[in-house]
Amino acid sequence: MSSVDKQLEELKAEITNELPSDISVSDVKYEGPELVVYTRDPKKFAQNGDLIRKLASKLRKRITVRPDPDVLSPPREAEEQVLGVIPDEAGVTDLDFHEDTGEVVIEAAKPGMVIGRHGSTLRKITQEVGWTPEVVRTPPIESSTVSNVRNFLKQERDERRQILERVGRQIHREQLSDDEWVRISTLGCCREVGRASFILSTPETRILVDCGDKPGSDDVPYLQVPEALGSGANSLDAVVLTHAHLDHSALIPLLFKYGYDGPIYTTEPTRDLMGLLTLDYLDVAAKEGRTPPYESEMVREAIKHCIPLEYGDVTDIAPDVKLTFHNAGHILGSAVSHFHIGDGLYNVAFSGDIHYEDTRLFNGAVNDFPRVETLVLESTYGGRNDYQTDQEDSEQKLIDVINETHDRGGKVLIPAFAVGRSQEIMLVLEEAMRSGKIPEMPVHLDGMIWEATAIHTTYPEYLRDDLRDRIFHEDENPFLADEFNHIDAGEDERQEVADGGPAIVLSTSGMVTGGPIMSWLRHVGPDPKSRLVFVGYQAQGTLGRRIQNGWDEIPMNDRDNMGRSNTLTLKMDVETVDGFSGHADRAGLENFVKTMNPRPEKVLCVHGDERSVQDLSSALYHNYNMRTFAPKNLETFRFK
Amino acid sequence: MSSVDKQLEELKAEITNELPSDISVSDVKYEGPELVVYTRDPKKFAQNGDLIRKLASKLRKRITVRPDPDVLSPPREAEEQVLGVIPDEAGVTDLDFHEDTGEVVIEAAKPGMVIGRHGSTLRKITQEVGWTPEVVRTPPIESSTVSNVRNFLKQERDERRQILERVGRQIHREQLSDDEWVRISTLGCCREVGRASFILSTPETRILVDCGDKPGSDDVPYLQVPEALGSGANSLDAVVLTHAHLDHSALIPLLFKYGYDGPIYTTEPTRDLMGLLTLDYLDVAAKEGRTPPYESEMVREAIKHCIPLEYGDVTDIAPDVKLTFHNAGHILGSAVSHFHIGDGLYNVAFSGDIHYEDTRLFNGAVNDFPRVETLVLESTYGGRNDYQTDQEDSEQKLIDVINETHDRGGKVLIPAFAVGRSQEIMLVLEEAMRSGKIPEMPVHLDGMIWEATAIHTTYPEYLRDDLRDRIFHEDENPFLADEFNHIDAGEDERQEVADGGPAIVLSTSGMVTGGPIMSWLRHVGPDPKSRLVFVGYQAQGTLGRRIQNGWDEIPMNDRDNMGRSNTLTLKMDVETVDGFSGHADRAGLENFVKTMNPRPEKVLCVHGDERSVQDLSSALYHNYNMRTFAPKNLETFRFK
Ligand SMILES: [Zn+2]
Ligand SMILES: [Zn+2]
Ligand SMILES: [Zn+2]
Ligand SMILES: [Zn+2]
Ligand SMILES: [Zn+2]
Repeated sequence: MSSVDKQLEELKAEITNELPSDISVSDVKYEGPELVVYTRDPKKFAQNGDLIRKLASKLRKRITVRPDPDVLSPPREAEEQVLGVIPDEAGVTDLDFHEDTGEVVIEAAKPGMVIGRHGSTLRKITQEVGWTPEVVRTPPIESSTVSNVRNFLKQERDERRQILERVGRQIHREQLSDDEWVRISTLGCCREVGRASFILSTPETRILVDCGDKPGSDDVPYLQVPEALGSGANSLDAVVLTHAHLDHSALIPLLFKYGYDGPIYTTEPTRDLMGLLTLDYLDVAAKEGRTPPYESEMVREAIKHCIPLEYGDVTDIAPDVKLTFHNAGHILGSAVSHFHIGDGLYNVAFSGDIHYEDTRLFNGAVNDFPRVETLVLESTYGGRNDYQTDQEDSEQKLIDVINETHDRGGKVLIPAFAVGRSQEIMLVLEEAMRSGKIPEMPVHLDGMIWEATAIHTTYPEYLRDDLRDRIFHEDENPFLADEFNHIDAGEDERQEVADGGPAIVLSTSGMVTGGPIMSWLRHVGPDPKSRLVFVGYQAQGTLGRRIQNGWDEIPMNDRDNMGRSNTLTLKMDVETVDGFSGHADRAGLENFVKTMNPRPEKVLCVHGDERSVQDLSSALYHNYNMRTFAPKNLETFRFK
Repeated sequence: MSSVDKQLEELKAEITNELPSDISVSDVKYEGPELVVYTRDPKKFAQNGDLIRKLASKLRKRITVRPDPDVLSPPREAEEQVLGVIPDEAGVTDLDFHEDTGEVVIEAAKPGMVIGRHGSTLRKITQEVGWTPEVVRTPPIESSTVSNVRNFLKQERDERRQILERVGRQIHREQLSDDEWVRISTLGCCREVGRASFILSTPETRILVDCGDKPGSDDVPYLQVPEALGSGANSLDAVVLTHAHLDHSALIPLLFKYGYDGPIYTTEPTRDLMGLLTLDYLDVAAKEGRTPPYESEMVREAIKHCIPLEYGDVTDIAPDVKLTFHNAGHILGSAVSHFHIGDGLYNVAFSGDIHYEDTRLFNGAVNDFPRVETLVLESTYGGRNDYQTDQEDSEQKLIDVINETHDRGGKVLIPAFAVGRSQEIMLVLEEAMRSGKIPEMPVHLDGMIWEATAIHTTYPEYLRDDLRDRIFHEDENPFLADEFNHIDAGEDERQEVADGGPAIVLSTSGMVTGGPIMSWLRHVGPDPKSRLVFVGYQAQGTLGRRIQNGWDEIPMNDRDNMGRSNTLTLKMDVETVDGFSGHADRAGLENFVKTMNPRPEKVLCVHGDERSVQDLSSALYHNYNMRTFAPKNLETFRFK
């Protein structure tokens, strides 16, 4: 008998022992990080409201109880019973019964009403029907990404359970080494922005944190060095994805091409956004005639292997590693990733990308951990002069620009990333219009912005508290405001907008490196009354940066068969409004560290250009007396 | 056609083109780092004295010319001819004809007379006989190690040629990556003494430098981490062995158990000493009832894969790496290993263990390199107070101790390492006796000391210049002095010595951890007139250290069936005479760095306890303004 089987047998005995004698345990299994307990008495189990919590705290495991398939009522019958328990106002849109596991997935417009106060409605479902309910939100704005992911996972359910069981046994395997050390190897994003990737390793375990690309370059993480994938991609125990931006996620699917078959720990919104963004990444590559490094099949593999965690859940991901995600304030689902290693041996936190202050979209990044000895800290704006304008001032400037442009009859064209900055700007515009600070006019959303917004509304739990509350009340959901229009009819619709009155256009790509913004430049660019407004960082080598620097002859990578000329003369004004960054500025980064309690002993400054990481590293050393480093790629640090 | 085959074809054309039209080239091959040119006209080739040198400098390769087997005279005939050319005084002891390669290996007491002035006699052999001569020295003192190694290599000649051809093709393979970086990973001997082991890596190449054990512990190098052996032991391009001490060599044979099948670059004496010491290492393990990590078969594999290099030879060992060994002054064959990476990209030197000043046995360590950006420096005596007594004073103290002991009719018992310190002490004693500073008395050599001495006399080129000259004249060879007696008849002989008059005994092990010294303690230990004299470092945890600290009740790990008691009461005096260390002291280490020109930019201080590496690192930083590090094991540093 394997050590895991022995462990499960012991757990089964212990659980049986803990339960009242009239509640039977028919099986005990690991599924990913969870311990699943099958019982022939699900209703009685649910009646003892506190049982699961007690068991979980006694066994120090995440526990799920499921009915033994033998005792299940048939789905047709159960459906009626379930709907009888849930109040109509919950707006159930789908019920999906899984006879293999006794789970019923309930999709509802108002999940809170399915859950009930402190979970009372859920408990009632089990008590009365026996099935184990799981709730997901019906996207308030239809999202093809969310529904594709959900349908795909439904369809791949069998394989997914196999994956989870395998992962579960891996996590709970016997610990082999009695050596003790903790190391971080840098595979990318050191002294540069892009291709974020790290290996966190112990004698027992190897974890890959992020695996991104580098915008404006062909550079990829150093996956070929032995400390990256070791004897093969399957020598990794886990992949952890901090957030969906491509500089962190683009090459995650590639791991599956390399034969990886293990879990990706991330948040649910990051999973969906990763799907959206990596598929787009493949699309863009194809459109630009490049051979992408993997096929869309691998994106599906990645999604299939995701194990979503919520902020604050402490989760075993290896025999000697517990992972906890915390809100990073950067984009939807972005997570500061905290690793507790060994039994009190060491703690490492990877900031991922963070925003320290609250924004309209998100609460500020969490920096409150019981212990962190080493912090790996992004340094995008770590340079000594990288202070950003206050968002209030930035908003005022944006409002002024919009008003001026409106007054002279022009249009405002804003290149923006689909994920994050677009929604932030939408919230600014919605409020400004509602409170009369700018005139009412249509706000057109082009590229993936609409879809990204839909994903945001699907996961309001990940948004700032007051915004979340507004979304819970459909009539106050700012993203549903009338002025927002989804450009979904292509060139004709754009032409119509261009020919029409004052309007605001938010369009991808954010650095003017392709996408519908190119088309908008053609339509609106020659109009001297209109304005191009940059609200985000324009990287070296991008067209956005060149335009910002004063270029007005734009080479159009023209695949247009209308015979139009290949360069475009830009006549519209160009403005830059700072302060909408998703990244903490220098003050924010310092504050993030300064207000940690206790402060980390060591900080690795990464994800910034050479000057930024050096400046931040030296400032943190001098101001807070910590050991700080500005690693190079391909180095390995040992901490214990 | 592979890129190597194409390269060889081009080389053949180029060589044919360079040669006079009456000299044919029948084949061109790589054997290890050498380019072997086969010709049907070996005699003509040899008549054009300068041809090979010109070719080598033109092609920037090490070149060997061999006769096409078709044109060889039969060995019996050739033997007579060869002996006809060599003067009788050369003392030829063996001729070994290899018809597959046209080589004849000539073993002679005086190799210089076989070589002739500037190689004139060798050339004459080829001119007149056609065979390619190679010369080795007949050991002046019979050495079973040397003769075993030579016989073994003779016997494995076919497989060895296959290995060399394979290695040659590996070395000259096409370079694949155009990335540029240089890294060192630490697998052992950081903040500790023992288990020396490093990986030097580039995008193209991975080299293991040393692979030793840690005396007094079970710790071995971290070979199990992915950056060590990567996807397997064969992902290493080369192993480089700086010297034969077990803390650098003990686990080299283990690599072959792990499937390594590539070259070990080292000096010829290090190859032989490694054979001697690793076989003894297995012996000791067996005697102590431990399971050794590999079998003696693996020692033979290691010897078979050795490619011996001489000091100063610049050798291609990978497409992007050239290796040069320099005298390290530490033990016979010990080498500072200089790596030139890329075409002027970077230079790294590993000091191995060094002695900076001249000793009786060796010239001081070489520190004169065209360029070294990073130096990996041993720090055994790097502590702020680690200054050693001058050797002159130490010798005087040893002489005084011997005289006192002799005068009161006692014996002097010196525990010593077989390799290095024993020979140094032998030289001191020989001179002292010859010049009348101590009375004539027998010096008994027990354990492997005699054998190690024999190996020293086989390779006089590796000894200090004046010592080398003395060995070349048999009657002046100090190791052949009358007073030296090889204890080769076991306990009876020891008993006889113990019962006899004044004498000096040099015996292994050097730290009194086993070996014949235990028996000598039994014989001589109870005699208050005798003295135990330590001349070398006694590590923490060894019996030697305990005795040094005043223990006089010695637990004897008794497998004696005579019923003697299990503890021994030591009545002899205990003395320590410092200053015979094979390691540079703190001043020597600083001088080694200080007198480098240019000095390295970075120094990694290793091979010393925590305090020593920290002290040395900080002193080098403050005194010479270099970037210095005291790495931990399991770290990776990137330099370019
Ligand atoms: Zn289903
Ligand atoms: Zn980001
Ligand atoms: Zn990022
Ligand atoms: Zn040594
Ligand atoms: Zn050593």
